[in-house]
Amino acid sequence: MKYVIIGGVAGGASAAARLKRIQEDAEIVILEKGEHISYANCGMPYYIGNTIEERKKLFVQTPVSFGNRYDADVRTLNEVTAIHRDRKTVSVKNLRNGKEYEEAYDILLLSPGAEPIIPPVPGTDLPNIFTLRNVSDCDRIKAAAAQSLCDGTEAVIIGGGFIGLEMAENLHKLGYRVTVVEKADHILTPLDWPMAAIVQQHLADKSVRVITGNGLAAFQQEGDALSVTLDDGTTLPCRLAILSIGVRPNTRLAEACGLKIGEAKGIWVNEFLQTSDECIFAVGDAIEYPHPITGKPYCNFLAGPANLQARIAAMNMVYPQTVRYQGSVTTAIAKIFDLTAASTGLSENMLKKHNIEYQTVIVHPAAHATYYPGGSQIHLKLNFHPQNGMILGAQAVGTQNVDKQIDAISLIMKHQGTIFDLVNSEHAYAPPYGSAKSPVMFAGMVAENIMAHLMNPIQAAELDELLDKKEDINLLDVREIQEFKTGTIEGAGNYPVDELREFLDDIDPDKKTVVFCEVGLRGYVASRILMQSGFEEVYNLVGGMKTYRLVGRHFEKK
Amino acid sequence: MKYVIIGGVAGGASAAARLKRIQEDAEIVILEKGEHISYANCGMPYYIGNTIEERKKLFVQTPVSFGNRYDADVRTLNEVTAIHRDRKTVSVKNLRNGKEYEEAYDILLLSPGAEPIIPPVPGTDLPNIFTLRNVSDCDRIKAAAAQSLCDGTEAVIIGGGFIGLEMAENLHKLGYRVTVVEKADHILTPLDWPMAAIVQQHLADKSVRVITGNGLAAFQQEGDALSVTLDDGTTLPCRLAILSIGVRPNTRLAEACGLKIGEAKGIWVNEFLQTSDECIFAVGDAIEYPHPITGKPYCNFLAGPANLQARIAAMNMVYPQTVRYQGSVTTAIAKIFDLTAASTGLSENMLKKHNIEYQTVIVHPAAHATYYPGGSQIHLKLNFHPQNGMILGAQAVGTQNVDKQIDAISLIMKHQGTIFDLVNSEHAYAPPYGSAKSPVMFAGMVAENIMAHLMNPIQAAELDELLDKKEDINLLDVREIQEFKTGTIEGAGNYPVDELREFLDDIDPDKKTVVFCEVGLRGYVASRILMQSGFEEVYNLVGGMKTYRLVGRHFEKK
Repeated sequence: MKYVIIGGVAGGASAAARLKRIQEDAEIVILEKGEHISYANCGMPYYIGNTIEERKKLFVQTPVSFGNRYDADVRTLNEVTAIHRDRKTVSVKNLRNGKEYEEAYDILLLSPGAEPIIPPVPGTDLPNIFTLRNVSDCDRIKAAAAQSLCDGTEAVIIGGGFIGLEMAENLHKLGYRVTVVEKADHILTPLDWPMAAIVQQHLADKSVRVITGNGLAAFQQEGDALSVTLDDGTTLPCRLAILSIGVRPNTRLAEACGLKIGEAKGIWVNEFLQTSDECIFAVGDAIEYPHPITGKPYCNFLAGPANLQARIAAMNMVYPQTVRYQGSVTTAIAKIFDLTAASTGLSENMLKKHNIEYQTVIVHPAAHATYYPGGSQIHLKLNFHPQNGMILGAQAVGTQNVDKQIDAISLIMKHQGTIFDLVNSEHAYAPPYGSAKSPVMFAGMVAENIMAHLMNPIQAAELDELLDKKEDINLLDVREIQEFKTGTIEGAGNYPVDELREFLDDIDPDKKTVVFCEVGLRGYVASRILMQSGFEEVYNLVGGMKTYRLVGRHFEKK
Repeated sequence: MKYVIIGGVAGGASAAARLKRIQEDAEIVILEKGEHISYANCGMPYYIGNTIEERKKLFVQTPVSFGNRYDADVRTLNEVTAIHRDRKTVSVKNLRNGKEYEEAYDILLLSPGAEPIIPPVPGTDLPNIFTLRNVSDCDRIKAAAAQSLCDGTEAVIIGGGFIGLEMAENLHKLGYRVTVVEKADHILTPLDWPMAAIVQQHLADKSVRVITGNGLAAFQQEGDALSVTLDDGTTLPCRLAILSIGVRPNTRLAEACGLKIGEAKGIWVNEFLQTSDECIFAVGDAIEYPHPITGKPYCNFLAGPANLQARIAAMNMVYPQTVRYQGSVTTAIAKIFDLTAASTGLSENMLKKHNIEYQTVIVHPAAHATYYPGGSQIHLKLNFHPQNGMILGAQAVGTQNVDKQIDAISLIMKHQGTIFDLVNSEHAYAPPYGSAKSPVMFAGMVAENIMAHLMNPIQAAELDELLDKKEDINLLDVREIQEFKTGTIEGAGNYPVDELREFLDDIDPDKKTVVFCEVGLRGYVASRILMQSGFEEVYNLVGGMKTYRLVGRHFEKK
C-alpha cells in the first residue's frame, strides 16, 4: 500500500511514524513544501527570546533521521500543487529545481496546517511586519529582533492571544518596549474578563502596554521609520511588528479538488478522520470537527489533538474505520511572564454565541497548603449549566499548579462531566502539592451550593448594574475591619462575619441584600446566616473583592 | 436538631462547618479529647524539620475562632468514653477537671481518626521512641530532635511509607544521619519495585541508609544509649526513633456500643456514611468503604476523602440519604528530597492479593518539551487489565509534574476509565508545561499497543528469569553504539534500530527475541520491524535500560 502525506510537521510526521509501525511494508512518501519536518512550532517564541538557545533544538527529527528510522521517502521543498482524485495522484513541484511531477497514492493524508490571517489593511507586506508560523518566519523575526537596541526600541504585537502574549514576553526579554494591540475588549479572549484582567494587570506590572478595543488600521514606513496606525488614529512607532490575530485552516488544495469544506471553513472529516473522499484523510489545524460541548463544527489549532488525530488516522488508513476521534474541548495554556493562564471549553462569549445557558463561579484558592512555604493563589473560573451541572468551560490564572487544575477539568469535561464530578474528584495531596480540597473540588463545591440554592451568586458586573441604578440594597462587607479599611465597594457597611449574628436586627431583611468578603467564602457563610434568618433575597458576590478590585467600577478607597 | 461530633480534626470540623451552613439553627457540640481542633496533621513533619517555621501555622482554626464563626460549642480536652445508643447520649470526661457527664444527641457523628500501630516488641515505651499522629506527638518529637547534634547523630525510622520518608527527609534536614527500616522487600509499598527503586536510589544519593526485608525486633536503652535491634540481629544505635509502620482505624467507641465493624476492621458505613445505627454517622480514617476497583472494603487514611466525606455526611445528617459517597481510589503523594513519588489505585502486590489479572507498562517521558530549558524525566508505571483495558493503578516518580499525571489517572480511574481514555485525554500544552503527548497519553498509547498485539511486553524480572535459565534467545540492544558501550544486558548484541533492517538476515527469526533500548520507544519500533519480518516471538523490554539498570540482575558494564 502506498501512502502519500502532504505536510511533514506535527500531524504528518506523527502519522507516518505510526503508519510504518503498524505496517512495515507500507510505502510512505512525505511531501513537505518547507525545508524542515517535525519541528517544534510551539518553541519558536522561546527561541526568538533566547530562552531556547540552540536553533537545532527546535528540530525533533531531520528528514534523513526520520527517513532512516521509518523507511520513509521524505521530500522537503516539494510542494503539492494539485490533487487529482480521479486518477489518485498529486502534482508536485520540487522547489529546489523547479521541476514538476505527479506522484500516485493509494491513500492520501492531508496535514497542510493553518496559515496566518493577514488583515486587508495597507502595509502588511512591509519588511519588518512578521507573522510567526514556520521556521523561516522564526529565523526572519529572530534576525530582525536581534539587531542592536537602544533604550526604548519599540515592538508592537497585533493580537493579544496566547501566541501574541508569548511573543510579547520574549521580545520584552530581548529589551524591547512592547505594545500589545487587541481589537476585542480584552486580551486572551478564550478567558473571560475577570480572568483576563489578572493577566492584563500583570502585563502592566511588567511595563508591557496593552491597548484593547482598538484594531489595526495600517502599517506605514517612511524612510527607516515604521509605525502602526490603529482604528482610532493612534500611531505607534516601532522597529518591528508581529501580526498575530489568528490563523485559518489551509484548505486550498482540498477545496481545489472538491473535498467538502465545513461550516467552520475547515476540511470536513468524519469520526475516522476521513474527508468526503474515502481515500483521503486529513488531520491537524486544517480540519474542523464538532466541539463536544456545542456539537457544532469547530477549528482547533492545538498540537495535542493534532498528534492524537495523526495516530488515529494512521490506524484507519491501514485498518479502515477502526478508531474513532472524540473531538477536542479546546484546552490551551501559555506562560505569560510570571503567570500561567489556561483555559478549556467555552468562554462566556462563546456560550452566549451558542445560546447556552450558564452560571459562573470564581474562586481564589491556595495553590498548595497555606502553611507550607512558597505558596500562591490560583484564580479559577468555572462556567457550568445551572440546570444539569454540566461543565461548560473553565479558566485559571496563577503562578503555580494552574496547568493541573485545567487538565483535571478538561478530562472531566471530555466525558460530559458535571460539577458533581469535580466535587467527587480525587487528587494526590500532600502539603507541597495542594490542599485536601483541590481548587477544582472547591470550585465544584461552590457550584453545587448554587445549584442546591444554598447560595445565590451575583457577578461583579451585575452588582455594578445595581449600583449604577442606585438600587436601595443592603450591601454588607463581611470582612474584618482592617480589611474593610483597605477599601471596599461604594456604600458598603462593615459587618464582620463572626459578629454578624449579633447585628441582624440592624439590617432590613426585606431589602435585597448583597454580601461580599475577600474571596467569597466568608460571604457564603454570611449569606447562609442571613438566608436562614428571614432575609428575603440574599446574594454573595462571586470572586469577592479579589475579583471586584480588578473588574468592578464602584471600588471605593478608604 | 442537636448534632454531637466526636473528634474535631479534619473530618469533624469540616462536617460541623458544613452542618451549620446548611442549618443555621443546628445545635452543634464538638467533643475533642485533644487540645486542638482542625489542625494540619500533614504539615507536622515539615514543622519538625523547620520547613514550616511557626507552630501556629499548623492551626487552621482555634476552638474559639471556630466556635464564633459556626456558632458551635467546641469542647477540647473532652473525651467521649462511651456511646449509649439506647438513650442517645454519650458519656464524656472533661480532662481538665476529671468530671464526667452525659451529653444527649439527635444525630451523632464519629470522626475519631486512626491510631498508630505499635508492634508487640520490647521497648516501644522508651522515652525517645515516637509515633507521629497529633500535635502532642509533634511537639515531643520536635523537642527531642532539636537537642544539639554532634556529627553523625543517628535517627531511625521504622517504616518506609510516605510519612516515614517525609520524616526521614526532615530529620536529615536537621542534621541527623537517618536510617529507614522497612520490613517489606522495598520501601513505599504502594509503589511497585521499579518505581520504588528510583526513590531508594535517591535516598542513597542523599546518604539516607535504607534497610529492607528486615523488621523491628526491639528497642533497647542502656544508660543514655538507645538502640534498635532488627529481626536479623542488626543493632542500630540512635538518639531517637520514629515508629511509622502504619495506622489502624480507631473503632474503640464504635465497637463498644455495638456498631458494625467491617472486614477491613474499620467502622462500617453505607453510601450515605451512616453506620449500622441510622442516627450515627462516621467519616475519616476510622471508616472502611468499598474500594471502587476491587469492590472490597478498604481503609484509606487520606485527608482528601475525609474532607469530602465530612461534606457528604453533613448533608445526609440534615437531609437523610440525599448524597452518596463514591469511595476513594487511594491517591497519595509525598515529596522525598528532590523527588516526588505518587500513586493511585492498586500496586502489583494488591492486584495479586485480589487475584486481578493485570499487565503493566513503564514509560520515562519528559516532564515538559525537551527543547524548553529546565526539563526532567518522569517515570510512570501503569497497571491495567489486559482484556478490557481498565486502569487498575498507576505510580509516578520524578522532579516535576508528577502530581499532574497521577491526578489525571486518578480522575479517569474514578470513573472506571480505561487506557483508551488516557489515549484520548486532553491536556493544556505549551512547552513550559508539558509535551503535545502528555505522559499519561503516552503510557495509554503503549498500553493500547500491547492490547492491540502490536507489541509484546516483557518485564525486567521476566527477562532475568530467562537469563537465569540461560534460555537461548536473541537479545538485541537497539540503541546507538555509544549507548551500548555504557553498559548493557549480559549477552546482548548491538543492532541500532535505524540500521536494523539491514541486519535482519543475521538474526535467527525462529528464536525467541527480546529487544530493548533506553526507555522503550526504539525497542517498540524495532519490535515492529521484527514482528513484521517473520520473527516468531518478539518482546520489548518494558521501561528499557532506564528501568533495567535499577532493578535488573544481569546488567553488564562494558
